[in-house]
Amino acid sequence: MNILEIIAKKRDNEKITKEEIEYFIKGYTNDEISDYQAAALIMAMYINGMDEEEITNLTLAMAYSGEVLDLSSLGSVVDKHSTGGVGDKVTLILMPIIAALGIPVAKMSGRGLGFTGGTADKLEAIPGYRTGLSVNEFKENVKKIGISLITQTGNLAPADKKIYALRDTISCIENIPLIASSIMSKKIASGANKVVLDVTCGSGAFMKNKNEAIKLAKTMKKIGDLSKKETVCIITNMDEPLGEYVGNTLEVIEAINALKDNMKDDVRQVVLELGAYMIKLAGKGDNIQENKGMIQECIKSGKAYEKLKQLVKNQGGDIRYIENVELFEKAKFEKQILAGKQGYIEKLDAGEIGKVVCMLGAGRIKKEDKIDMEAGALIHKKVGDYVENTDKILTLYANNEEKLKQVEMQIAKAIVISDKRNEKIPSIMEII
Amino acid sequence: MNILEIIAKKRDNEKITKEEIEYFIKGYTNDEISDYQAAALIMAMYINGMDEEEITNLTLAMAYSGEVLDLSSLGSVVDKHSTGGVGDKVTLILMPIIAALGIPVAKMSGRGLGFTGGTADKLEAIPGYRTGLSVNEFKENVKKIGISLITQTGNLAPADKKIYALRDTISCIENIPLIASSIMSKKIASGANKVVLDVTCGSGAFMKNKNEAIKLAKTMKKIGDLSKKETVCIITNMDEPLGEYVGNTLEVIEAINALKDNMKDDVRQVVLELGAYMIKLAGKGDNIQENKGMIQECIKSGKAYEKLKQLVKNQGGDIRYIENVELFEKAKFEKQILAGKQGYIEKLDAGEIGKVVCMLGAGRIKKEDKIDMEAGALIHKKVGDYVENTDKILTLYANNEEKLKQVEMQIAKAIVISDKRNEKIPSIMEII
Repeated sequence: MNILEIIAKKRDNEKITKEEIEYFIKGYTNDEISDYQAAALIMAMYINGMDEEEITNLTLAMAYSGEVLDLSSLGSVVDKHSTGGVGDKVTLILMPIIAALGIPVAKMSGRGLGFTGGTADKLEAIPGYRTGLSVNEFKENVKKIGISLITQTGNLAPADKKIYALRDTISCIENIPLIASSIMSKKIASGANKVVLDVTCGSGAFMKNKNEAIKLAKTMKKIGDLSKKETVCIITNMDEPLGEYVGNTLEVIEAINALKDNMKDDVRQVVLELGAYMIKLAGKGDNIQENKGMIQECIKSGKAYEKLKQLVKNQGGDIRYIENVELFEKAKFEKQILAGKQGYIEKLDAGEIGKVVCMLGAGRIKKEDKIDMEAGALIHKKVGDYVENTDKILTLYANNEEKLKQVEMQIAKAIVISDKRNEKIPSIMEII
Repeated sequence: MNILEIIAKKRDNEKITKEEIEYFIKGYTNDEISDYQAAALIMAMYINGMDEEEITNLTLAMAYSGEVLDLSSLGSVVDKHSTGGVGDKVTLILMPIIAALGIPVAKMSGRGLGFTGGTADKLEAIPGYRTGLSVNEFKENVKKIGISLITQTGNLAPADKKIYALRDTISCIENIPLIASSIMSKKIASGANKVVLDVTCGSGAFMKNKNEAIKLAKTMKKIGDLSKKETVCIITNMDEPLGEYVGNTLEVIEAINALKDNMKDDVRQVVLELGAYMIKLAGKGDNIQENKGMIQECIKSGKAYEKLKQLVKNQGGDIRYIENVELFEKAKFEKQILAGKQGYIEKLDAGEIGKVVCMLGAGRIKKEDKIDMEAGALIHKKVGDYVENTDKILTLYANNEEKLKQVEMQIAKAIVISDKRNEKIPSIMEII
């Protein structure tokens, strides 16, 4: 077997075998196969596509290219993953609920890049909270209090890291087989046996339209089936930002409020749907409606909020901030964005708002960028709302006044107000 | 403009502009664009193809990526190029003829790699002959005696060199648009305004069948048209080795004999056809048949042979070897390959014979390999010939006896003898 033959096969749109895929992944991880050979092969995979078996073999080869966590000692751990969105604080709300329901939560989260945020960054907005635990400490925490949320640790799926970085430099990011295998390889490496995937769809997501999102969801579900990891995909709307706040500290505040039973309707829909399926996969209830009832009850009773405090305390965070969100540092500068005309909000472009918030400092443009925790936006109105001239649509926050000025033109493009009221897009678009 | 956008366009099978192609070639030549980005783009070019305009723009961008020779002071120089073959000594025979007819010959030749030989290596089989002249000395020679044959010099088409080396490592060699632009860029950079291309076709050539060869020929002719370099392509048979000898010293001997009017019929056909079109392009005769007559006459009169001696002498070679080919060093060992059965020769596989001769030391497997000048083969019989059991088919020559033993199995595969006589494939297959 040699890499030239493997490249030539995929170049000629032939199927490559499990052994050939493993040869490539092993060789590339070990630097025996060069970046340019990998680039040629990945471009051929992108253009000519891969069948389900090839995608699954690629996923498993990447998953097993490094350490694979064994969480079997913790019981039936169900993982949750989102393909990324703007204002997506669902993990922060949902995971304490799941843990409060007695289902072990051992979740590693990524950092944000581009306009989508990362849960690990958001957690670090809580003073003292430690995201960088060892695998042992991580497992011990789950055993002790039923929950731990940390950043990705150890040498998990190094092939995926290398290939993802390469894809970024060769215009091979937006490809369903490659996206699906990247996500699933990380999930498998981080010990997931069952996983609920939030496949976001719209201007603020990787997948811009429903057909693409469905294709991605079906591909990931198929990988799950073939690799014996039970998988449910829920396609959610990401045309407008999710919930009330976008930004790291701001989203933590919204999550805390949500667990104090003060949750925006669109966020609630996503939390209930994802949560109900997580409960189902964990074997704690087959009826989705009843499961949603359990989640509502868990919030109302205050148990989920208590679990959040327990989590934060256990990982070194200062729970006074949880008890009183007014303690969180605020951005020095803010800017109101007014409607300027009357009518119905037709569009609040999540992608554009995400980019603006990123430029304000809430996200990273390059990996090494530092985040401004307080920067972000408050979404006063949602699509379908009626507004008067002087109504506030958004408030932007930043610690750099100059940046607030720079984004004026761009933020204007994100908002469309029209005379006619359009129907709202439901938050939950499809279950796969 | 940026490379990610250019890669994405070709990935999506869109046409890329002249400016985008120039941006890529300039950036890659300057090391501003990485090997892996170039690899991804070239794979996308390979799979999705390029139209005539894109191919021509790529050719010109590569041609102008370095020095471009200006041969206009020499008069109407017509270049000649072969896509490579086994036993192809046509340049050595034809160029002295053309010069003897008063048409200036200023030709740079490549070195061999793999089973196809290179004229520069063959010239170095003549003791003293200097192939590595400066551009000035090269031009002065042409002005003085009407001919100079040297190896590629200067910084000609560096982008092509870099891309060719990359293609070799990413399974992107066998692609007509990339082959055509590589050949034509080198021709344009070496100052050609008019060019006759020998497009070899068969087991001993890049192009294995006639359809592919015609496609390559038409592509190169189109590049020629669009870049205003008049081009004629002649498709020639390379299913069996050309002429009597394969190997560096051996082919020089055959070429000298040919100019002494002792030329094998298949070689003569190719020399006459290519030469007649070179004369036509040089504006020295429109009638192909008459031109062929001029060539025959030029050989018979001894003028072509005298021109060869003049060339060799002028470039430091020892003309005693030309006058008496018995002086050439001979290989220490030889091996006869007998028919072993009676019948008609159905196949003398040029590709297999080329590989065997390369293994015997006559060619390079890697660029840095040293050549055994005396190694090679004598082809006693040609396809269609009747043979008895004990007739010699080939004699193999090498300075390493061990190697002669190693190739026994392989050379057997190259020869097929059957009861029925097949028709000979004509040497000239098509003019384009």
